[in-house]
Amino acid sequence: MQRFFTKHQIDENNKKLLLPKDVFHHAIHVLRMKSGDQFELVTPEENVLICEILEVNKKDGTFKIIGKNTKNSEIPVKVTIVCGVSKGDKAEEIVKKGTQLGAYEFIFFNSKYSIAKWESKKKDKKITRLKTIAQNAAEQSHRSHIPDVKWVSNLTELMDVLREMDHKIVAYEEAAKNGEKSVMVQLVKDIQPKQSIAAFFGPEGGIAPSEIKILMDNGFKSAGLGPRILRAETAPLYLLSALSFGIELE
Amino acid sequence: MQRFFTKHQIDENNKKLLLPKDVFHHAIHVLRMKSGDQFELVTPEENVLICEILEVNKKDGTFKIIGKNTKNSEIPVKVTIVCGVSKGDKAEEIVKKGTQLGAYEFIFFNSKYSIAKWESKKKDKKITRLKTIAQNAAEQSHRSHIPDVKWVSNLTELMDVLREMDHKIVAYEEAAKNGEKSVMVQLVKDIQPKQSIAAFFGPEGGIAPSEIKILMDNGFKSAGLGPRILRAETAPLYLLSALSFGIELE
Repeated sequence: MQRFFTKHQIDENNKKLLLPKDVFHHAIHVLRMKSGDQFELVTPEENVLICEILEVNKKDGTFKIIGKNTKNSEIPVKVTIVCGVSKGDKAEEIVKKGTQLGAYEFIFFNSKYSIAKWESKKKDKKITRLKTIAQNAAEQSHRSHIPDVKWVSNLTELMDVLREMDHKIVAYEEAAKNGEKSVMVQLVKDIQPKQSIAAFFGPEGGIAPSEIKILMDNGFKSAGLGPRILRAETAPLYLLSALSFGIELE
Repeated sequence: MQRFFTKHQIDENNKKLLLPKDVFHHAIHVLRMKSGDQFELVTPEENVLICEILEVNKKDGTFKIIGKNTKNSEIPVKVTIVCGVSKGDKAEEIVKKGTQLGAYEFIFFNSKYSIAKWESKKKDKKITRLKTIAQNAAEQSHRSHIPDVKWVSNLTELMDVLREMDHKIVAYEEAAKNGEKSVMVQLVKDIQPKQSIAAFFGPEGGIAPSEIKILMDNGFKSAGLGPRILRAETAPLYLLSALSFGIELE
């Protein structure tokens, strides 16, 4: 069933509701939904309502709530994917696939070895675009949470933002080269529901030794993600898949 | 260190060897390597030799072997990723990232719900291009095995090709919807080193009920890959990451 997110409050006691503005265009003009068609509506509180369209007019439409979908599609831990910006459309790819794989939020920043830094103008446009990609991917993968996409200007500020995280790991190429094998497994064993993880990834150029020092000083652990060298846009997907396998499957 | 694959036999007892033809152009013309530069050379037997360039001329060059890299970067099981063809460049993406994540080989075929089927002319060109992508990704991720990329024309033939596989699973959307959680975990528990797995994925349109029946009749088990709906090009990456996490980390 088609799933939409709305930013508008829904009065669940009302028997006949107006289609929210952020749903109407997509549902009626793009998908040409008609009276009797059903859809899922995710409220700002992340409840999933099963709805049916009542009437459609040119400028608006009405619907009723016929049930609730209580099946949880969210991984019970909050994974923040932190990436040094890479060139090309790698950020788009990370957000799109990372959202399918359950990321809670994304933070991008200009790291030391970033080849294509995001300057302030470009940055705002990029972040807006990435937020849209996250929402679309969340709808398609039937999530109830839209991952936020944030920008942090430097590593010092980033360490402040991540200070309260329950677990902090960094995917460092040297850890993979040294055959580090236990940090990820231990993380899956230790983590408790609702806890948060910050997972830090370098850009395609890697992480500078001075950056690694700051990360280590702030409680990050260097985690190996298997013995093969993963590209910047692949490593976050490995991490999210491994966490899902370790936490959600049994 | 730069890694190259060669199809030519290397006489490891020879103190001064000619750069293989399939390495010379890339090493000398593209990467401008010079006398004294080192590289890794993967032989047809998948041994990784550490080499040093001796002399470079316009049309050829020589090198000597200075050691062996015995660090294993291959996952100890053979995972065959089988995909119904999807439109756009999804096959390229699956081969590129799947190679980084350790796939042993890839098989593509026109499935019932494939929107953009590969006709015979297009197919040969596609497979050749995918083989090149696999080799490049294998070099970059420091693997010693280049995954083969194959084409099989229909599901009946495919079942013959996969008959001897030790384990067979299919990522079926309905399994995810029904909350199937144990097949992947059981697979990781049961699988023995050197065993083979066929992992079957539909195209973006999904797998037809008649195709699922054939798969079930041929011993495939339907495996859930977490509660979120994954796109055709993301599901194989989840599977490979989960297997690496479950088998290679500890």
